Amino acid sequence: MIKVIILGTGNVGMHLIRVFSEAHDVELVQVYNRTKSGLKSLNNEIDTTTSLKELKEADIYILTITDDAISKFSSQLVIENKLLVHTSGSVTMDTLKSKSNRGVFYPVQTFSKETAIDFKAIPICIEAERNDDLVILEKLASTISNQVYYIDSEQRKQIHLAAVFVNNFVNHLYKIGNDICAAHAIPKSILKPLIRETSRKITHTTPLDAQTGPARRSDLQTIKSHLALVSDTNKEIYKLLTQSIQQTYGEKL
Amino acid sequence: MIKVIILGTGNVGMHLIRVFSEAHDVELVQVYNRTKSGLKSLNNEIDTTTSLKELKEADIYILTITDDAISKFSSQLVIENKLLVHTSGSVTMDTLKSKSNRGVFYPVQTFSKETAIDFKAIPICIEAERNDDLVILEKLASTISNQVYYIDSEQRKQIHLAAVFVNNFVNHLYKIGNDICAAHAIPKSILKPLIRETSRKITHTTPLDAQTGPARRSDLQTIKSHLALVSDTNKEIYKLLTQSIQQTYGEKL
Repeated sequence: MIKVIILGTGNVGMHLIRVFSEAHDVELVQVYNRTKSGLKSLNNEIDTTTSLKELKEADIYILTITDDAISKFSSQLVIENKLLVHTSGSVTMDTLKSKSNRGVFYPVQTFSKETAIDFKAIPICIEAERNDDLVILEKLASTISNQVYYIDSEQRKQIHLAAVFVNNFVNHLYKIGNDICAAHAIPKSILKPLIRETSRKITHTTPLDAQTGPARRSDLQTIKSHLALVSDTNKEIYKLLTQSIQQTYGEKL
Repeated sequence: MIKVIILGTGNVGMHLIRVFSEAHDVELVQVYNRTKSGLKSLNNEIDTTTSLKELKEADIYILTITDDAISKFSSQLVIENKLLVHTSGSVTMDTLKSKSNRGVFYPVQTFSKETAIDFKAIPICIEAERNDDLVILEKLASTISNQVYYIDSEQRKQIHLAAVFVNNFVNHLYKIGNDICAAHAIPKSILKPLIRETSRKITHTTPLDAQTGPARRSDLQTIKSHLALVSDTNKEIYKLLTQSIQQTYGEKL
């Protein structure tokens, strides 16, 4: 039985609380949050606290607070000879200021409080200073996910950067697509099947091979007419991404 | 029974041939293609020709050739008092040069030859010069799809523009994500669940609400460290999309 305490009840924290509550071979000993209100939606059977002095004993302390707070918060934690991990993609392991052993437990996913997520398919990137801790982190990650990876801090930063492209930036392009529809009285549901299929395609082919469209085939006529249509706000994005696609496939504007 | 002839056996053509062959109330009378090789993968039961002179009688002639060829090709067609439609998102209806009645039958989807697609969920945008033709086009579209929309040529151009953002550009961001992983010995499968969830999210929330990440929360520290990490090729894309997200949510760089 791996004893776990989760600190923080934001999106990542809440999802980990839910999944570890149900996991075999894991005991969720306690949940800490700075404020009481952050704890009130939790199941009554879960032991909670708002005081760091009341922290119980556990094997692994999982910090799910915001990136900026990791350094300072961890320096206030009085736990020794335990394993303290954070769950951030963009912060190095040694941002943790603690006398405890340190590690990282980074699930590569976008979490929202509303949606239950199947953890089995979520990649979990683990890192630890000590080999023993890496073993126990792998054991812990395996109780909830089928995809566990050893990833060092430098690689993790790159994954986080890549995630910004395929998640935040992609979502922003969805927003631009919706805006275009809204501005021309087109139901935005018209784009949804296309969005779904675009993401589904790359499960069986690479995005390099999957590319289609005017930039890919250097259809200058269509590109020109799109540039005349697109709003000023989005014109630079259209130009830059078109250029980048053309460069990828060996064509220049 | 609506009698249909399909001209062209590219991606769109092949998918329409397959789905109309199986549709109730539709008779696929004939398939035309310029070359014999473009016809050889078709089922033997389908009547085919490479000669425009051998075109049979039908109610609707569906042109699935490339955008650039629509004008010239349609001027060579000798069909009268029939309905001729193209399937393009970016070309106006009157690009069809024909004595026949004209219309458009535009499925909003990205097609690849390999993947069978469930047409029921694909939006089909229809347009016609004559009301009677609109009625028959709606009937035809309804035999294969649950989502049929009346969309005029100007709206259709905007849909095509939006589709470039949510399909071609999104796919290019997937490619950049993969490149980042490949350059740092990170298995690219690590991004797939995130990609899937990002597209799934907007089935129950708007992309405006779904946005997360450093640009959304104006986390300048992370943005700065990403700009130091990202390759020169992708730096401008990172900057521009970050800026655009910040402007969306009322923050400036």
